Amino acid sequence: MLRNLPENETAMTPQNPDFETMVRASFARQSLMETMGGRIERVEPGLVEISYVRDEKLLQQHGFMHAGVATSLVDSACGYAALTLAPAGWNTLTAEFKINFLRPASGSAFRAVGRVMKAGKLVSVTEGEVWQDGEKLIAKMQATNVLQPE
Amino acid sequence: MLRNLPENETAMTPQNPDFETMVRASFARQSLMETMGGRIERVEPGLVEISYVRDEKLLQQHGFMHAGVATSLVDSACGYAALTLAPAGWNTLTAEFKINFLRPASGSAFRAVGRVMKAGKLVSVTEGEVWQDGEKLIAKMQATNVLQPE
Amino acid sequence: MLRNLPENETAMTPQNPDFETMVRASFARQSLMETMGGRIERVEPGLVEISYVRDEKLLQQHGFMHAGVATSLVDSACGYAALTLAPAGWNTLTAEFKINFLRPASGSAFRAVGRVMKAGKLVSVTEGEVWQDGEKLIAKMQATNVLQPE
Amino acid sequence: MLRNLPENETAMTPQNPDFETMVRASFARQSLMETMGGRIERVEPGLVEISYVRDEKLLQQHGFMHAGVATSLVDSACGYAALTLAPAGWNTLTAEFKINFLRPASGSAFRAVGRVMKAGKLVSVTEGEVWQDGEKLIAKMQATNVLQPE
Repeated sequence: MLRNLPENETAMTPQNPDFETMVRASFARQSLMETMGGRIERVEPGLVEISYVRDEKLLQQHGFMHAGVATSLVDSACGYAALTLAPAGWNTLTAEFKINFLRPASGSAFRAVGRVMKAGKLVSVTEGEVWQDGEKLIAKMQATNVLQPE
Repeated sequence: MLRNLPENETAMTPQNPDFETMVRASFARQSLMETMGGRIERVEPGLVEISYVRDEKLLQQHGFMHAGVATSLVDSACGYAALTLAPAGWNTLTAEFKINFLRPASGSAFRAVGRVMKAGKLVSVTEGEVWQDGEKLIAKMQATNVLQPE
Repeated sequence: MLRNLPENETAMTPQNPDFETMVRASFARQSLMETMGGRIERVEPGLVEISYVRDEKLLQQHGFMHAGVATSLVDSACGYAALTLAPAGWNTLTAEFKINFLRPASGSAFRAVGRVMKAGKLVSVTEGEVWQDGEKLIAKMQATNVLQPE
Repeated sequence: MLRNLPENETAMTPQNPDFETMVRASFARQSLMETMGGRIERVEPGLVEISYVRDEKLLQQHGFMHAGVATSLVDSACGYAALTLAPAGWNTLTAEFKINFLRPASGSAFRAVGRVMKAGKLVSVTEGEVWQDGEKLIAKMQATNVLQPE
C-alpha cells in the first residue's frame, strides 16, 4: 500500500547471521502457536510470515476465526520479525499493539505477515497484516516489540 | 484509577432485561473461550468479567501466559460488556482495539474485566484490564465494539 | 513497505467526481490547519498529502516539531483521504487512531500522507505516515474515520 | 470508571521532591501549549491536568475543537504525568498513543487529565481523558511515554 512512497531508509541487516534458527527455536519454545496450529512459513530479515488453517475449536460465535486468533498470529509474526534483527541469544516481548479488523474472517486459509518498520537496539516498531484466502486483507496491526537478552 | 474524576454520565441501562442470558448464550456459541478455558464470572450492565487459569498449552517462550491469550480474554470481556447494553437478539463484533502489556504474565490465575466507557446504539467504546493473582494489573485495553442484529 | 504483498482489492473509486473540491472546501472551513500552516499538496482517490514547515510557535521542549502537530497533520490527511471516496456533500470525523513516533521530529520540512486501507460506506480505515526532510519516516498512524452527510 | 477494581499497587512516589517545578519548567520550554492556550492546573505525583478554552483559530470544519487539539492537550498531560515520577533533570518523549473520540467537542471549556498507570524507570504507561464543560468525557487516551536524562 505504500508503494509510491520513498523507501524507508532503515537497514534491515541481521546482527545474527543465524537469525532464522533463533526465530524458529523461540517459536518452538512457546506452546500457543503449536496449540493453535500456526506455522512459520517465511523468516527474512525484518519479516516473518505465519500460516494458519481455520480450526473448529478456535471460532467466534458466527463460526469465523476468532479475533483473538488473528491477533495472536499477527502479534507473533510482528514479534519474530523484530527478533530477526536482534543479536544472537536475544528474545522478544510485546510492549503494546493496536489492530483494526477490516472484514469478517470467514475464510479458511490465513497468512499473518509481520514487518519491521523501525528497527531499534532495544525496541522495534512493526506492522502486520492478516490475509484471508490469498488476497483479502482482514486485519492490520501496528506494534511495539521489546528486544532483550535471554 | 479514575476514582477522583467526575462520574461519566453514560447511563448503563440494559435494553434487554435478559441481557445476562444473551451474553452467556453468545459466549457458549463461540469455541475459542471454551478451548482456552476462559469462564464468565460476572455479567452486569456494562461490565463482564472472565476468569482464566494458566494453561501449559497456551504459553509464550518464557513459560508465561501468551499475550495472545491475555488479549483474547480481555477482547471477549470488552465485547460482551458492550453486548449487555444491546437489544435482545443482537450480537457484537470487535472493530479495533489497542492493548498495553504492563508486566510479565507470570501468574497462575487471571481475571479479564471489560467495561463500557461510552455506550452507543451501533458502536460502543470499552476499556478492559487483565489482573494477575488478585491485585496486579498486567494489561490494559481500549476498544471499539460494533453492535448489530444477528 | 508492503510492496511485496498482494494488492489490496479495495477499489478506490470516488463516488463524487468532484471529490477534490469537496476535500479542499472542508479543509478551508477548519481553522486548525491554517493556524498551524498545513497545506494540502495532493488529493487523489483514497490519498491526501499535507505539507508543513517547522514553526517556532509549535515546538516541544527540545525545539522539535511537537508530537501534537505531527498528529494533527496526519490525522487530517487520513480523514480527508477517507472523504475523497464519500458522496457529495458528506464530511468526515475521526473515531479513533493510534500513532507511533519513530524518530525525533528534528527536521524542517514535513509531509503527512493519509491513505485509505479499507473504504466503507460509513466508516473507513486509513493509515498515515509523517515524513521528514524527504526520506525519513518519523511517525505512523492507523485510524478509523467516520463518514456522514453534512 | 475503575472504582470497583482492586487498587493498582504501583507506588506513585516522586524521585524528585521538586517534581512540580521540573514539570512546569519543561512545559514552559515548549511553545505548542502556550500557542494553543493550554494551562497546567494540577501537578501531583503521577497526575497532570491541563485546562483549555475553545479558540476560534483551532477548530475543525463544524466549529468544534479540532481532534488534533484535544490530542495535543491530553498527550501533554500524559507525558507530564509520567515526568512527575522521573529523577531531577530528566525529560519525557511520547513513544506512541491511541485515542478514542467519544463525543463531539462542542463545548467551550476543557480539561485534559493524564495519569500514570504503570511507572517504569525508562518507560511509563499512562492513560488520559479529555472532559468537556465539567462532566462530559469526550476522549480517552492510552499512551507509552519514554523518560530520559536531558
